[in-house]
Amino acid sequence: MTTDDAQQIRTLVERWAAAVHSGDLDTVLDAHADDIVMYDVPPPFAGVRGIDAYRAVWPDFFAWQAQGAAFEIDSLDVTAGTDVAFAHALLRCGTPAELAERPELRLRLTLGLRKEAGRWLVSHEHHSFPDLTTP
Amino acid sequence: MTTDDAQQIRTLVERWAAAVHSGDLDTVLDAHADDIVMYDVPPPFAGVRGIDAYRAVWPDFFAWQAQGAAFEIDSLDVTAGTDVAFAHALLRCGTPAELAERPELRLRLTLGLRKEAGRWLVSHEHHSFPDLTTP
Repeated sequence: MTTDDAQQIRTLVERWAAAVHSGDLDTVLDAHADDIVMYDVPPPFAGVRGIDAYRAVWPDFFAWQAQGAAFEIDSLDVTAGTDVAFAHALLRCGTPAELAERPELRLRLTLGLRKEAGRWLVSHEHHSFPDLTTP
Repeated sequence: MTTDDAQQIRTLVERWAAAVHSGDLDTVLDAHADDIVMYDVPPPFAGVRGIDAYRAVWPDFFAWQAQGAAFEIDSLDVTAGTDVAFAHALLRCGTPAELAERPELRLRLTLGLRKEAGRWLVSHEHHSFPDLTTP
């Protein structure tokens, strides 16, 4: 693992999260692989597959964020190898009312990345909230 | 990416999933790093941190599996680098009644791994079901 690669990925994730919050679609899509597989919070069960499908999930989420919801990185842990990396993060993600009712609420995010032509690309994202209905 | 590394990881995940289903705790824990961070289906929001906490989640799950629930890999995709890897998978996971009612139900699983002393170790797991209540 090199410090430089880990820092590049950290910067990439922070820039992506800021763009998710501000509704900047071009920056959200930047550094994402054409063959991305995203496990989103809602279905489809088989995942959101390919960059076109990934692009399509964001407008509804941006509209929700624009109503005053948070999308803030609380912790971010990066494991960067020579050519493949992964990262996991916890984010404050919710409306002010949701976060007031349950301050400990966090979105869990895992990213898988590969280095192509010297540049890190996200090829997998897994987003979820803990299931509060599980016994 | 080497085919050999990807195959080693595929075998590791298949062996782990079989052990989760059969309730073989030693095999579930094998090839897992002491500093593992697991985002489990239920809370805690901050994740299950460390191998002792990871060990403690399994007995309740084994008891549920022993009642006849499925834990079968439906698809598994591995991205293996020289020293870091990640994998994502969809699993049939549920009781016969749950899977009869919703045949498309899948557990989404993402794993992060690193190679230490020539051996792949899982240092991150993210388990979730899609949230069916999200608009």
